[in-house]
Amino acid sequence: MERKKILITNDDGIKAKGIITLMNIAKAYGDVLVVAPDRSRSGMSSAITVEEPIRLKKHNDEIGFETYSCTGTPVDCVKLAFDKLLDRAPDLILSGINHGSNSSVSVHYSGTMGAVIEGCIHEIPSVGFSLCDWQFDADFSHFESYIQRIIEQVLLHGLPVGTCLNVNAPKGALEGIEICRQGNGRWVEEFDKRTDPHSRDYYWITGYYQNLDNGSTDTDNHILETRKVSIVPIKVDLTDHAFLPKLKEWEL
Amino acid sequence: MERKKILITNDDGIKAKGIITLMNIAKAYGDVLVVAPDRSRSGMSSAITVEEPIRLKKHNDEIGFETYSCTGTPVDCVKLAFDKLLDRAPDLILSGINHGSNSSVSVHYSGTMGAVIEGCIHEIPSVGFSLCDWQFDADFSHFESYIQRIIEQVLLHGLPVGTCLNVNAPKGALEGIEICRQGNGRWVEEFDKRTDPHSRDYYWITGYYQNLDNGSTDTDNHILETRKVSIVPIKVDLTDHAFLPKLKEWEL
Repeated sequence: MERKKILITNDDGIKAKGIITLMNIAKAYGDVLVVAPDRSRSGMSSAITVEEPIRLKKHNDEIGFETYSCTGTPVDCVKLAFDKLLDRAPDLILSGINHGSNSSVSVHYSGTMGAVIEGCIHEIPSVGFSLCDWQFDADFSHFESYIQRIIEQVLLHGLPVGTCLNVNAPKGALEGIEICRQGNGRWVEEFDKRTDPHSRDYYWITGYYQNLDNGSTDTDNHILETRKVSIVPIKVDLTDHAFLPKLKEWEL
Repeated sequence: MERKKILITNDDGIKAKGIITLMNIAKAYGDVLVVAPDRSRSGMSSAITVEEPIRLKKHNDEIGFETYSCTGTPVDCVKLAFDKLLDRAPDLILSGINHGSNSSVSVHYSGTMGAVIEGCIHEIPSVGFSLCDWQFDADFSHFESYIQRIIEQVLLHGLPVGTCLNVNAPKGALEGIEICRQGNGRWVEEFDKRTDPHSRDYYWITGYYQNLDNGSTDTDNHILETRKVSIVPIKVDLTDHAFLPKLKEWEL
């Protein structure tokens, strides 16, 4: 049987502890190709680099374990891998492990999940892993056996075309795993205004998360609070199919 | 009656013909606040700027018509407006008119639509407009009366919480408007490899769109081919609700 081929990327950059953990887990399941940003590209969503050229650098080319970094976004990494580095479609695309949560609406801003959605658009089973701990030396060890089980189940069952997985874990001891829906909430911005030595103002993005779940227990936010790993299946098709009939009644 | 307040942004930058066209249309419906990128930020998706500070510049502060540019992404523009510039929640958020199509999966990469989804996360009726013509001097005149009608209908009916609109128009004469779903397809990358004067390789992203609709006539791609304006309602909740029961059967 041909060995599985697994493409790995992230948004914290190729040197992050999270992606190194994920590489080490994935190696047991097949040949690994890593193409990851050369630096942190957090919050890059599904951004692509169109205004400037991208550079690609080979780090390691062992047979069965190749690693590259690129100056582009997580989505650029997936696209470059497909066009220039893969000799066949991979069996699996993994992204992460992100240093920080990507639950609820954070899925929209997440570069980790941007890469996963890109893999899904290419019709490859794709999974993003995130730990609710943004520290550079975060401890991923409690999450590892869960990641293994998820990889095994995805390789066994596959995923529907157009659907990928957003997996999050709380930090510290885990008490299981649960399938759930994307939580409802938003980031409320409080830009931090400062003044540079030349008297010009600038802003740093900052803020807090406002949970709008109103007590729902089937959301990723809630599952994470119960110390469980959350899995949300995510769709490439953003259409609000339920609203289509109503919208067709408008006088347009 | 209090005048309507309309927030406008785009991803082609504050000087683009498309946003100037949209400002001129929107002025008839209320007070306009423009916060747009200071340069082209195409393909920025829902990216936010976390690695560097953002600068904001006031261009015009007429009562009822204020304009600002910022160094951030389209989503940063919306977030900055909410935190620093708006004295109350706007009645409407408009993005565009984009120079270039944002139909089908391009909704994922689109900075225009990133800003619209951000507006929707803030529970404001939000609409993105795109013309299938990326030229800087594209002709938007045939699209204007459709944009007016859509603005009027959105102000009249509102939009469901968590749902926004992705409106695209073909270039040239229009033959109506249709509500439809997001087309199925993908961009197939063909990165253009070049070598700089210092013998180092670099890549430009390029490629072609692969339509995977298989003859469906209810997609934005198809509607645009019939010379009509397409409107797709887009959801903030990415959960694949239909797949949840099946996924719960996995041995996780």
